[in-house]
Amino acid sequence: MASVIVAAACIFLSCSASVAHGRRFVRSSSYDEPCKEMRLYLHDILYDYSNSTSNSTSAAVTKPTALSTAVSKSGYFFGRVVVFNDPMTEGRALPPSLEETTVRAQGLYLYDKKEDYSAWLAFSIVFNSTAHRGTLNLMGADPLAEKTRDISVVGGTGDFFMSRGVATLRTDAFEGFTYFRLQMDIKLYECYVV
Amino acid sequence: MASVIVAAACIFLSCSASVAHGRRFVRSSSYDEPCKEMRLYLHDILYDYSNSTSNSTSAAVTKPTALSTAVSKSGYFFGRVVVFNDPMTEGRALPPSLEETTVRAQGLYLYDKKEDYSAWLAFSIVFNSTAHRGTLNLMGADPLAEKTRDISVVGGTGDFFMSRGVATLRTDAFEGFTYFRLQMDIKLYECYVV
Amino acid sequence: MASVIVAAACIFLSCSASVAHGRRFVRSSSYDEPCKEMRLYLHDILYDYSNSTSNSTSAAVTKPTALSTAVSKSGYFFGRVVVFNDPMTEGRALPPSLEETTVRAQGLYLYDKKEDYSAWLAFSIVFNSTAHRGTLNLMGADPLAEKTRDISVVGGTGDFFMSRGVATLRTDAFEGFTYFRLQMDIKLYECYVV
Repeated sequence: MASVIVAAACIFLSCSASVAHGRRFVRSSSYDEPCKEMRLYLHDILYDYSNSTSNSTSAAVTKPTALSTAVSKSGYFFGRVVVFNDPMTEGRALPPSLEETTVRAQGLYLYDKKEDYSAWLAFSIVFNSTAHRGTLNLMGADPLAEKTRDISVVGGTGDFFMSRGVATLRTDAFEGFTYFRLQMDIKLYECYVV
Repeated sequence: MASVIVAAACIFLSCSASVAHGRRFVRSSSYDEPCKEMRLYLHDILYDYSNSTSNSTSAAVTKPTALSTAVSKSGYFFGRVVVFNDPMTEGRALPPSLEETTVRAQGLYLYDKKEDYSAWLAFSIVFNSTAHRGTLNLMGADPLAEKTRDISVVGGTGDFFMSRGVATLRTDAFEGFTYFRLQMDIKLYECYVV
Repeated sequence: MASVIVAAACIFLSCSASVAHGRRFVRSSSYDEPCKEMRLYLHDILYDYSNSTSNSTSAAVTKPTALSTAVSKSGYFFGRVVVFNDPMTEGRALPPSLEETTVRAQGLYLYDKKEDYSAWLAFSIVFNSTAHRGTLNLMGADPLAEKTRDISVVGGTGDFFMSRGVATLRTDAFEGFTYFRLQMDIKLYECYVV
């Protein structure tokens, strides 16, 4: 009965919905009103520098490319691929344990500009807490010179079954290439709500 | 006329549909009733060990990272990127020809944990059989310690035009790093049916 | 009021739509009538050969794999990963400036076949022109022996907020591994139109 009401309401209101066993598909009716949103901070601690083995959460997996070495303004790492398994937190502080955090981002980023810092990302956010279990999968361009950058949430599983949306990235801290913290505002516009 | 009936029915039933030339969009009404499902087995034969050149279907493309070497519990390959072009089959047996299989998975996986086996995948399943022509594109986290892992089907082409869904992975065989077989239960919840 | 009319019309016509603040979701009603389409050419100039540093737009980031070296028919680069930041244009001609083009493709491709040329791509198209601002995110298999190959548009941001679709690739020029030009016919079937 509820499903009929939801569907009927959606004919006259600006939304669309279909009902699944225990879950109902919702398409957000407004850019400003996502069906789900959250802010998370990603902490990336690169091994290759002064960081200790136990603290590091990411590692460059390729050698400097011939092109990056040849470019006169070096240091932008064109072609560097980094694999990461970074803790994510609701607040800015590093988590007590870097290894046991309940929300993690796993995947790769790479640098792709000769004369400036620009990156590209493809990764999953893995939730393993009492609040959320499941994953979100994201990819997109991350031109670091821009204050904020939007990437796509292209899918989800578990609590985030079939979700889609947009994540807005903002560099919140940048300490050389030893540590950076990324603020990630995730807004889902297609959800299956319980 | 059929399209009107489908659309009308969807107001009162738990589904949503729109009609295209010869294809109709269907959103699955239930987690348990995908609009399309199939089970496939992926066979991965890594070159770097005892496998012959002709049998191998994948290759590590990066050297061990400084981090993976530094970690005392080595052997989890943090940062290793593997490119694969793996045959997929409906049954568990290896196909007669590793090169000519009509369903293949192409893309990359990488290892991303220091103290355990955990992977991340991004790849396409390419169908080139009488039953199916087209592709499915997938990505997601693959923490191998879990019995099953869900990744996202983020798009499709050809017979799988614009599909979305979830694939559940289960390690079905694991012979050192020489060979592994992955059971993949693919469930699509957004389809364009003919 | 307009939204009610749109929604009501969609019950009887072959489309589906919901209305957002200033944006309206549209699912294309036909394979032949995408809600948005465009043709772009991607220009890839690989560093590793005769190209100069300033002209190059991509670089191989991995060494030849043991497998690719062992295969008798070498030259198909199994496992080679290339990072690119390629200019895209509406016409076939190279843009006046390779660095300042307003549409760019950023990401990676890799070669994944032992006995033939076959690639796999994951990248973003970044629009920064007066006509379009935003990104499209794509991934898929690119078996070069086929005349055309379809990959998925899995998401979008900015002007392409939440878009999905299919891009058809055709090799338009191939000059050794120094330069290739890819024709990309992008068709979106899910749009948020203003």
